[in-house]
Amino acid sequence: MSTQQGNYLEDFSPGQIFNHPIPRTISEGDASLYLALLGNRNPLYCSLKTANAVNFKSIPIDDLLLFHIAFGRTVNDISLNAVANLGYANIQFKNPAFVGDTISSQTKIIGLKENSNKSTGIVYVQSAAFNQDGTELLSWIRWVMVPKKNAGAKIIEQLPDALPDSADLSIIERKGIIFSNLDLADTGSNKLFEDYQIGDAFNHSSGITIDETDHTLATKLYQNNAKLHFDAHMMKDTPFKRRLIYGGHIISLCRSLSFEGLENAIQILGVNSGTHSNPTFAGDTIYCRTEITDKLELSQFNGAGILRLRQFGFKNKPGSKISEITTEKNGKKIYNSNTVLDIDYFVLIPRRK
Amino acid sequence: MSTQQGNYLEDFSPGQIFNHPIPRTISEGDASLYLALLGNRNPLYCSLKTANAVNFKSIPIDDLLLFHIAFGRTVNDISLNAVANLGYANIQFKNPAFVGDTISSQTKIIGLKENSNKSTGIVYVQSAAFNQDGTELLSWIRWVMVPKKNAGAKIIEQLPDALPDSADLSIIERKGIIFSNLDLADTGSNKLFEDYQIGDAFNHSSGITIDETDHTLATKLYQNNAKLHFDAHMMKDTPFKRRLIYGGHIISLCRSLSFEGLENAIQILGVNSGTHSNPTFAGDTIYCRTEITDKLELSQFNGAGILRLRQFGFKNKPGSKISEITTEKNGKKIYNSNTVLDIDYFVLIPRRK
Amino acid sequence: MSTQQGNYLEDFSPGQIFNHPIPRTISEGDASLYLALLGNRNPLYCSLKTANAVNFKSIPIDDLLLFHIAFGRTVNDISLNAVANLGYANIQFKNPAFVGDTISSQTKIIGLKENSNKSTGIVYVQSAAFNQDGTELLSWIRWVMVPKKNAGAKIIEQLPDALPDSADLSIIERKGIIFSNLDLADTGSNKLFEDYQIGDAFNHSSGITIDETDHTLATKLYQNNAKLHFDAHMMKDTPFKRRLIYGGHIISLCRSLSFEGLENAIQILGVNSGTHSNPTFAGDTIYCRTEITDKLELSQFNGAGILRLRQFGFKNKPGSKISEITTEKNGKKIYNSNTVLDIDYFVLIPRRK
Repeated sequence: MSTQQGNYLEDFSPGQIFNHPIPRTISEGDASLYLALLGNRNPLYCSLKTANAVNFKSIPIDDLLLFHIAFGRTVNDISLNAVANLGYANIQFKNPAFVGDTISSQTKIIGLKENSNKSTGIVYVQSAAFNQDGTELLSWIRWVMVPKKNAGAKIIEQLPDALPDSADLSIIERKGIIFSNLDLADTGSNKLFEDYQIGDAFNHSSGITIDETDHTLATKLYQNNAKLHFDAHMMKDTPFKRRLIYGGHIISLCRSLSFEGLENAIQILGVNSGTHSNPTFAGDTIYCRTEITDKLELSQFNGAGILRLRQFGFKNKPGSKISEITTEKNGKKIYNSNTVLDIDYFVLIPRRK
Repeated sequence: MSTQQGNYLEDFSPGQIFNHPIPRTISEGDASLYLALLGNRNPLYCSLKTANAVNFKSIPIDDLLLFHIAFGRTVNDISLNAVANLGYANIQFKNPAFVGDTISSQTKIIGLKENSNKSTGIVYVQSAAFNQDGTELLSWIRWVMVPKKNAGAKIIEQLPDALPDSADLSIIERKGIIFSNLDLADTGSNKLFEDYQIGDAFNHSSGITIDETDHTLATKLYQNNAKLHFDAHMMKDTPFKRRLIYGGHIISLCRSLSFEGLENAIQILGVNSGTHSNPTFAGDTIYCRTEITDKLELSQFNGAGILRLRQFGFKNKPGSKISEITTEKNGKKIYNSNTVLDIDYFVLIPRRK
Repeated sequence: MSTQQGNYLEDFSPGQIFNHPIPRTISEGDASLYLALLGNRNPLYCSLKTANAVNFKSIPIDDLLLFHIAFGRTVNDISLNAVANLGYANIQFKNPAFVGDTISSQTKIIGLKENSNKSTGIVYVQSAAFNQDGTELLSWIRWVMVPKKNAGAKIIEQLPDALPDSADLSIIERKGIIFSNLDLADTGSNKLFEDYQIGDAFNHSSGITIDETDHTLATKLYQNNAKLHFDAHMMKDTPFKRRLIYGGHIISLCRSLSFEGLENAIQILGVNSGTHSNPTFAGDTIYCRTEITDKLELSQFNGAGILRLRQFGFKNKPGSKISEITTEKNGKKIYNSNTVLDIDYFVLIPRRK
């Protein structure tokens, strides 16, 4: 008897709700491991002094660590059998989490579409994560390509409502947090909201090489059990030939590498879209480029502004040596093979007093 | 001057007692690392909500993490020079441990036997681990093959009392813990004691590939200083050619992989026997098969029954593709080369209310 | 636009002070990771029972973990562009740190010297680390070779005051700590101050092989962002061809390996000098030899004496097989290629009651 789990295309139906199992209490150990795996230097997530200065009573959990843990809950039900993670939209970081919080995730199926090959299709989901008090911490839309188990199975198609071009920040606030109290001596930079202009672009100078244990430790920590990250024996017989690195690990690496140059971009508020444009494998060195694509001021964030970033992850070639992100091929724009991530997100950054 | 430590066959005598050094306080960091190394998803060990529901006041330490830490204490005195770890019997998980507990281990030599080659012999030990209050948490019997330092040394032989076929559960209880309060939404499965039948067999679908840093981080975390896990230079000149993975890491991986299909098998109560039937090395992918070999009901576990499991670990071949575990060779049954673990243990699982 | 950071020779001037950014709160997770990365067995750093026995109210942070975290703060300002870390002097472990403490580092430039090639020079620094109360925990002198950005830039040379031959212990104390209460059952050895003689030498029997993830996890944990440890792509074009292991990792490994034979050498008080005599890379197996070069008794350490150790790290050859540390070449003594560390430091060890 096999215990094979995970759902196939025909197992999903629009409106279906999953209350994912395995609540997860976040510990100091998780935060240390995340730091050791990514090399993060943002002091908000490693310094009680910094956290207290802006009025957090303890060190918050890194936004992306929270995302990975929340996301990890959903894998077994939603994407264990997925062929590809196609995209993200409207990731909203609604409230921070802290050591001791217990995270649960929930997912609603918001769209379903069969591919013309009749052997796969696309599932659109809206997921959210909650703490032990039922406070919503995080929500996101994603769509994944999932195979059918039986080619003949009937699929009830329903397209999702139009996906938003950008994360809706209007409902996000940080009550009681005074980001303008950030001590710039803690971040090492006095570049604030006013010092960034739309069109600015930065090639962050550091690169980090990923080894097998790095990404597998990270993904196991998140209890993300997608097999293609862990099972080298199985992967030998795929076109990839070896374990594929969890795309979220690349997002985290780019966030970490971009501390240099964006030292005061203290929290992520929302992610507008994200594409894993090429696979990454152990041995790849990841570099990052950031472009400032917009500047926003929202009344609920007193003393802080918002930068909209378009961030690229590159493998095995520093951003400073990359001129073109995409090439035209048969009339279509495709990503060049070094580009592994194209993500668009909002960060909060203090304004000059 | 060499500081070479560890004992040889002639250093042991029946009745001898070792109070092992290096008490070890378990931290949140240990629990996170264990989770990241093994990919455990059992919510009892990562969710305060789940732990509280069954009446634990905090998250208990994973049974096997406790075992590895307790076992690690004994290595320097008992098996630093061991040629092979031959077997286990009567491992009893008497009481749970929690973050903050300080673990100490003690060992009594219960048997000694010289091999006919006169250069090695077998040491039988009974070990136990205690917390800071002197409460016994865990005990186990194991036997190891240990070399003599001087071929001419006299060995006082004494065979141990007959080893029990199964762990004695009569003395184990979980006072105040109400396993029937387990929230099945937390584990994601409603398969309970009644849903498993003797003879059921499961090939768990996931595999996990082990890298060098995985198993060495684990073993260093347990302060298990057996050299063959760490010293690649030394191992080059052995028949193994490279570092050998700690057998306990395979036990933990199989326990973790078998969550799929045994989601409510919430705690290990005892291990009846265990054989590391073939060595494992970095690069191996581990799969797991579980057979239900018995069902027990003990009055002290209200609302929960006990499954006896025979669990096999396989390398580089999923259980679903393995038909024979053993082959006959010269009239003896030997394990096939893919079979790396054959372990027999009891798990507690809630009954239907 | 590049975000390239770090200073060049002409950016430094004598007397200049850096208050390094990114305060770092130490957690239980950091301590567990350090243990898992190094395989430490010194019970003072993993056993609350042991810590309490000598009168610490909680488990102190391993001296070298504190050093690495404190040192990590200084890298971005001082040595991000360094060609080589040339030496250490007068490292003083003034006060212990504990879980929850927030560490900040400060550096003063105490010397500056241009090399005759006019393209590099030497920067001498005095650094110190403080906790959240402003208590000084640690200070050290080091000197690094740093390139000039512009060959023509003028350098204001100033030699540092004569560097001390040994760390000044006169100002170090451990108020209220009663090391003579150390329970020798916790360390497993009854060898105390009186049992070591000047001239004793130990080849510690264990070796530990370093893998890429080991040293990169360690260095990222310390937020030491020196690129040559992380960026394999960049390192391909250097004479090293691959990532270089952080020298501090070798110091920690030697300290850990030397527990065997120096079980009661409970804390490091000061480091007199240290040389990374050859580079180390993933795959290298590290061994250690310790020589007792002096014995001191200072009145402020009641019940404990001080051993001065000269410790050598060797790669891929056990100390027992190494006869000569150095060779004469063109009239100069150079280290043999297996010798990777030559460090001279003071440890505190209880005296017989």
